Amino acid sequence: MAPGEKAAGGGKQAGNKNVTVPVNLNGISVSKDVNFSQWYQEVVTKCELVEYYTEISGFYILRPAAMHIWGEIRDWFSERTKAMGVEETSFPLFLSATSLEKEKAHVEGFAPELAWVTKAGDKDLEVPVAVRPTSEAVMYPYYAKWIRSHRDLPLKLQQWCSVVRWEAKQTTPFLRAREFLWQEGHTAHLTEQLAEKEVLEILELYAGVYEQLLAVPVVRGKKTENEKFAGGYWTSTCEAFIPTNGRGIQGATSHALGQNFSKMFDITVEDPNKKGEHLYVWQNSWGLSTRVIGVMVMIHGDDKGLVLPPRVARIQVVVIPVGITAKTKPEVKENLNNKISELAAALKGAKIRIEVDERDGYTPGFKFADWEMKGVPLRLEFGPKDAEKQVVSYARRDNGAKGTIPLDEVAAQVPILLEQIQKDMYDKAEKAFSSHRLMLNEWEKVVPSLNAKNVVIIPFCEEPKCEDEIKDKTKSDEAELGPDGKPQPSMGMKSLCIPFEQPEGLVPGETKCLNPSCGRNAKSWVMFGRSY
Amino acid sequence: MAPGEKAAGGGKQAGNKNVTVPVNLNGISVSKDVNFSQWYQEVVTKCELVEYYTEISGFYILRPAAMHIWGEIRDWFSERTKAMGVEETSFPLFLSATSLEKEKAHVEGFAPELAWVTKAGDKDLEVPVAVRPTSEAVMYPYYAKWIRSHRDLPLKLQQWCSVVRWEAKQTTPFLRAREFLWQEGHTAHLTEQLAEKEVLEILELYAGVYEQLLAVPVVRGKKTENEKFAGGYWTSTCEAFIPTNGRGIQGATSHALGQNFSKMFDITVEDPNKKGEHLYVWQNSWGLSTRVIGVMVMIHGDDKGLVLPPRVARIQVVVIPVGITAKTKPEVKENLNNKISELAAALKGAKIRIEVDERDGYTPGFKFADWEMKGVPLRLEFGPKDAEKQVVSYARRDNGAKGTIPLDEVAAQVPILLEQIQKDMYDKAEKAFSSHRLMLNEWEKVVPSLNAKNVVIIPFCEEPKCEDEIKDKTKSDEAELGPDGKPQPSMGMKSLCIPFEQPEGLVPGETKCLNPSCGRNAKSWVMFGRSY
Repeated sequence: MAPGEKAAGGGKQAGNKNVTVPVNLNGISVSKDVNFSQWYQEVVTKCELVEYYTEISGFYILRPAAMHIWGEIRDWFSERTKAMGVEETSFPLFLSATSLEKEKAHVEGFAPELAWVTKAGDKDLEVPVAVRPTSEAVMYPYYAKWIRSHRDLPLKLQQWCSVVRWEAKQTTPFLRAREFLWQEGHTAHLTEQLAEKEVLEILELYAGVYEQLLAVPVVRGKKTENEKFAGGYWTSTCEAFIPTNGRGIQGATSHALGQNFSKMFDITVEDPNKKGEHLYVWQNSWGLSTRVIGVMVMIHGDDKGLVLPPRVARIQVVVIPVGITAKTKPEVKENLNNKISELAAALKGAKIRIEVDERDGYTPGFKFADWEMKGVPLRLEFGPKDAEKQVVSYARRDNGAKGTIPLDEVAAQVPILLEQIQKDMYDKAEKAFSSHRLMLNEWEKVVPSLNAKNVVIIPFCEEPKCEDEIKDKTKSDEAELGPDGKPQPSMGMKSLCIPFEQPEGLVPGETKCLNPSCGRNAKSWVMFGRSY
Repeated sequence: MAPGEKAAGGGKQAGNKNVTVPVNLNGISVSKDVNFSQWYQEVVTKCELVEYYTEISGFYILRPAAMHIWGEIRDWFSERTKAMGVEETSFPLFLSATSLEKEKAHVEGFAPELAWVTKAGDKDLEVPVAVRPTSEAVMYPYYAKWIRSHRDLPLKLQQWCSVVRWEAKQTTPFLRAREFLWQEGHTAHLTEQLAEKEVLEILELYAGVYEQLLAVPVVRGKKTENEKFAGGYWTSTCEAFIPTNGRGIQGATSHALGQNFSKMFDITVEDPNKKGEHLYVWQNSWGLSTRVIGVMVMIHGDDKGLVLPPRVARIQVVVIPVGITAKTKPEVKENLNNKISELAAALKGAKIRIEVDERDGYTPGFKFADWEMKGVPLRLEFGPKDAEKQVVSYARRDNGAKGTIPLDEVAAQVPILLEQIQKDMYDKAEKAFSSHRLMLNEWEKVVPSLNAKNVVIIPFCEEPKCEDEIKDKTKSDEAELGPDGKPQPSMGMKSLCIPFEQPEGLVPGETKCLNPSCGRNAKSWVMFGRSY
């Protein structure tokens, strides 16, 4: 704990100092554990991350609190990819029906979700154009044009844009929307080794976005054949976990495309080692979307609302004047305001994003609840009593802990406290994930483990058909709450990834695949779970 | 001139030192003055700013050199708008046919250019949706929802995105494309005064993008009724000038929407001064697009290709090893390479964006021409003779001037030199604009002035019908080259703006409108010109 901090009673009370917290009628109306799906919808809207776009279903407006998080991620990721030599580009929004023909294997997966522009003004287009669901087919004809020699390699481009996938499934803000923001990187390399190195470097950056910025732990691994990118070679992924419902969720994927696309699009260079012979380049594509924000909300939020990791919070610290009553003398009030201005200036000087809530007509208690709901990591309270003692009182959003900081140490202590909050949030989430990731050697334990909100790590043969069987066998009639809040049968489990960090205990040629009707040898420990 | 600099002979030679510059077969094949339109197309493609998207006409790929410029603009503008309290948002790409009905006056102008999505997968949509041409109709229903009290004002949001306008007219990279990147700001205020103040603050930032980043001078002013934003109240603009063809070009516009949209979308608050009474909010919208890049290219480019202002150039300085021959001793070569590494490190330490061109198999002369074409502001040459003298030789891209800098002063001198280049480029463009902005009091001089590649400032009544007449009367049969390079009749002149800085000499109630068949009194000096 940080200096001057004392533990709060259960961390669930807003405080029992000298302020009564009223019921916030605008607050979150359901408990996270009781109706997770409604809780989530309320949190993302009431905390002003998104607004539902009622004109067209499945679309959402991202509000400043969400865009700030995305901006922090963009800055962090761009800085690091730039250092890797990745440059920014912007390709058109549309791809033509004719260029889609070229790469059917890849496109098949997206075809049912393509939005087609067929008219401009009142005229029909001669050839309809589709809004990009991803940009392989938009970009790679130009990679073929630009890459003429091995000197043009590596080619490393990325763009930040939105893509459209007209989902038929139920949409959810951030997690599944018909339009979403992302970055997509597309690179070409001379050799498989160079390409593979980059796939993993990018995956590590994606894991960094989750772990270092969003305080969300992830498991790094490889997707099975069933779950890899359509048309690609192999897919690396980082997988997160939602403790409330025990589901896995794909965090972000970095794909080795191998030579599959370079063969489709004829992207070749002369082999620098064998004059006259051509080789197909090795390509990667990798994407991170605004889904990350939804994962963060689901993991850290609580019954009071959002809990934001300090590194991405638009407002890291809110300062609330307290202890002012009708009887407070004007000079005391003025003195307090002056001190608060000094406090604010000191914090801004320390590069802290702060807001002073000087709204008239609201009680401190109302303000406390309001900012707690919105997830501001740290609340500073300052009143006549604090002024007397030359301190400021604080309350942490993540665990409710309270304490005081000497006024002249605020600029030094608050950044330390924010970093402590960041770390504690990560540690808490990491504990929740690792304690719900069960290594199993008995098939009988699988479904009960899933029902008890775990994901499982099991010996698996890695065969696509066996994976389908496992999914089928783990469907459960035991009720869980669906997105509509009503009980429904549980889905079967999917493979989430083959973790790069393989646990011990799997004996090659001896350990069997856990699926009792399989009989093949297990190739690896694979993480399975019910998932988004 | 900077220390150590000597004037170059006409600034057209790459240098007569010890290097012969070969004809660059990949270079720009036509002179800017001879065929401006082909010159422009070659420059933007060969200098790798854009690639034509051949799959769908009217669309362009923005390559890293262009995206870097846009990124610099985004950072500069975001920093300043953030300080004004503007926050980032992201609204959907689509607007529904039904919400378009609401604001017909505004939409009419865009209707012929709307791209309509009518199908998702193989299913027809029940209600077609249009890709946004601009976002007033997408956003303002939510402004009505979010603004409930005067405490919610001002509301200041902007987004960086692309918009689609399916132009029937000939498209040109950056200047007129069917999809382009822009930022669009949308704000709401309690009073006309507060709104107006912001309109002009934003206009000043737009002018700053041109003048401070792109070294392009602009004239600030107000649009006439004919040229203002459809559905708005009044429009402020900054107008640039292309000396090569004497055309004006709209730089960026900041619109006062007045209460026109708040009445359409019912965006009201209770009047804080009159309890119980509601007032419609005052709104602004303002946009700056990638068009700025095209204007910059047209103004600064020359027969060798692009000339980039240092502040936005992705590569500000290129370092080229020279004077190495087959006879050069290995230890001399190695020493040179070491010195160049030190030089590069010193420049990077001074936050200069540099590239060392160590490509094998290319002569220095080829490299000189290549980087000149691509517009890199400053070339540093370093060879055995420079090493002996402890200097580095330089050549400025903008005026061809050459000189030397002592090695140990490079980190200090190069930033100064780059700023000098930036300033000189601006001054040159400013001189070209101001000397081709003619104040006229005789109607007879108008067409000859236009034909001599000027824009004109004339006394004008500000009546829309009179403006139409003037346009008609100034059409000229004298040939100018069209976008296809063939002679064609010249277009008539349009009003560009009513400059905020009004020249003297207009006597109210006395000076007549310059249109001889008008007869009304002139209200102001108005800048007219042939234009983009």
